[in-house]
Amino acid sequence: MEKKYKELTPPQRILLGPGPSNVDPRVLKAMSMPLVGHLDPYFFEVMDEVTELLRYVFKTKNRLTIPISGTGSAGMETCLVNLVGKGDEVVVGVNGFFGQRMSEIVKRCGGTPIEVKEAWGRAISAESVEKALADSNARVVALVHAETSTGVVQPLKEISNLTRKYDALLLVDTVTSLGGVELEIDNYGVDISYSGTQKCLNCPPGLSPITLNERVVEFIRDREGKIQSWYFDLNLIEKYWEADRFYHHTAPISMIYGLREALRIIYEDGLEKRWAQHLKANKALIKGLNAMGLETLATENNLPSLTAVKIPEGVSDINVRKALLNVFNIEIGGGLGELKGKIWRIGLMGMNACERNVILVLEALDRLLRKEGFPVKPGEGLVAAMDVFQE
Amino acid sequence: MEKKYKELTPPQRILLGPGPSNVDPRVLKAMSMPLVGHLDPYFFEVMDEVTELLRYVFKTKNRLTIPISGTGSAGMETCLVNLVGKGDEVVVGVNGFFGQRMSEIVKRCGGTPIEVKEAWGRAISAESVEKALADSNARVVALVHAETSTGVVQPLKEISNLTRKYDALLLVDTVTSLGGVELEIDNYGVDISYSGTQKCLNCPPGLSPITLNERVVEFIRDREGKIQSWYFDLNLIEKYWEADRFYHHTAPISMIYGLREALRIIYEDGLEKRWAQHLKANKALIKGLNAMGLETLATENNLPSLTAVKIPEGVSDINVRKALLNVFNIEIGGGLGELKGKIWRIGLMGMNACERNVILVLEALDRLLRKEGFPVKPGEGLVAAMDVFQE
Repeated sequence: MEKKYKELTPPQRILLGPGPSNVDPRVLKAMSMPLVGHLDPYFFEVMDEVTELLRYVFKTKNRLTIPISGTGSAGMETCLVNLVGKGDEVVVGVNGFFGQRMSEIVKRCGGTPIEVKEAWGRAISAESVEKALADSNARVVALVHAETSTGVVQPLKEISNLTRKYDALLLVDTVTSLGGVELEIDNYGVDISYSGTQKCLNCPPGLSPITLNERVVEFIRDREGKIQSWYFDLNLIEKYWEADRFYHHTAPISMIYGLREALRIIYEDGLEKRWAQHLKANKALIKGLNAMGLETLATENNLPSLTAVKIPEGVSDINVRKALLNVFNIEIGGGLGELKGKIWRIGLMGMNACERNVILVLEALDRLLRKEGFPVKPGEGLVAAMDVFQE
Repeated sequence: MEKKYKELTPPQRILLGPGPSNVDPRVLKAMSMPLVGHLDPYFFEVMDEVTELLRYVFKTKNRLTIPISGTGSAGMETCLVNLVGKGDEVVVGVNGFFGQRMSEIVKRCGGTPIEVKEAWGRAISAESVEKALADSNARVVALVHAETSTGVVQPLKEISNLTRKYDALLLVDTVTSLGGVELEIDNYGVDISYSGTQKCLNCPPGLSPITLNERVVEFIRDREGKIQSWYFDLNLIEKYWEADRFYHHTAPISMIYGLREALRIIYEDGLEKRWAQHLKANKALIKGLNAMGLETLATENNLPSLTAVKIPEGVSDINVRKALLNVFNIEIGGGLGELKGKIWRIGLMGMNACERNVILVLEALDRLLRKEGFPVKPGEGLVAAMDVFQE
């Protein structure tokens, strides 16, 4: 035995990137509870409660509202692989990295993405979606509600009405909105949605909550043949989460314990109060950034849980992010795809959407930008943010 | 707010079913450490250590030795979807539930399984694999090393030699053997293997460790077109685990913390010592069961980590398992597929493979079988087991 492996001692980061966010100690405690089996009557109760609590945060009555045993991208693949078969056309809104990913997965399902493109940093317009629906045979429209790569929130109601008009299903990525950003699955007319646990739910990454209505259930049941994935086959997964409890795969017990606790916290706090906290923290952050002379990428439809801010010319992306991490123990995100090196992404998600974090990240940026030679008047950003919290 | 959701208070089960097994408190503690981001330099160190420790338990030098972000079945799908394309023939050993599952997934990949069948409870013979290889164009042979549905361990060396002779790759399911049952990926000539965390590693379910050699890496790279899954695409996942750290999906941080600790425990104990503990506990269990008049399903190639025992005529499967759980807090498994109602499955996995658990399960069965009218001489099974531990 040569190498010694030491005890795990991770640094105490403030996670203000695009996720994971910090996890509530109550969630970590729940995850450290002793395991029961995945067919234990006690675990069935836990599963039922998770389903109920997920319905609460999704604002839906959908029977099939469950966590998929993988991260957010697994939820994306689950939804698409169940909806899209060989030769199927799918209207996909592409205004960022995750829209691109949906388009890529549609292709892997053998489908043809009809891409409705928009500049990164802007929302997809209802007009362009209608045009794509009118010009194609698409039965599915796929949109990203909270585009984590650009900090844009996608308005959904008008497009939802269009999907009814054209007899299509509306699939929505709510990875970075669920639990933090106004979202009402049933009221908005969203037919199917997937999310992640590591953003506004303050739970570690590893599960993808999804919800689908009976229109989608029927659509999937009526598809010819079996879908190409066994692990993500909702017809099989459903049987384990419903009354028969038919074994499919071993559920990730501890992660589901954690998700239950994360949802329980939101349920106790109140969902609408959470949404308001995100709005306020986001407003304070943007005011602070603007006061420091920084601009956000999005000029409208700002996503409350994540802000993309343009890196000023002459300032080093890497230097600033490294110092944030190493000196201030604060993580923020860099740009993805075509925005690499051009933006920073600051996430204020779940319990992280609070006055303390806004002040800390502005203070650190204040100091580091000045070090980079960017003209910030000391404290100006902080004062602007404080004003919002004092309102 | 109507319903109250209480704090999580799971019962303290002794998990002697087919998995999950009990989790070492050190692993639960590691999982409750504060999160860092999936692109944090600290996490990259953790990833490198997990890779090294996985190589240790797999007994391999394979560069690509990583956990897949899903449960064991996700690992199965990952391996098959990367190896099998439209029209490909694959020799699949089917002597239990999990061989059947591999065959099903081959079909979903568009391939044709060439099933080599054997009675449930027996190993696949090298002769029948050779016949299938000679009669087909298969480039892949898929076998279950530790068939969790029957308690049979599959000898691999002879079949591995055959795959060389026929220029095929050997894929092996080691979900219930890794860390507990003799297994040497490189020495046995296994080209690619997937496992699970919730069996002999004593870590919660949620990850699937896999390992593949350069023969497989080349085979996958040489395949035409993209594979049908994005989430399980090893060409993409590899880039995140290798030097470039190219973002694919958000890694399940806490689960990987837990896996690292579970592997660290085995590394400190010594792998070969672990194998010996499993052999001894299994021997004691079987001696005890036999002394009570019970028969195992397998008559040879007994899997040390899981024993399938025939339910005696007139004894209620459900009554016994319910009482085990409710009165003794012991979980054992029922039969799957064609063995439903016919066998119990007793798992002694990782730290659960110990004298205490053998005695406790035999004592409980002793009492419950007598209650069911099955003639057991009180204590006879326990004495037979104790003899083994006193050797």
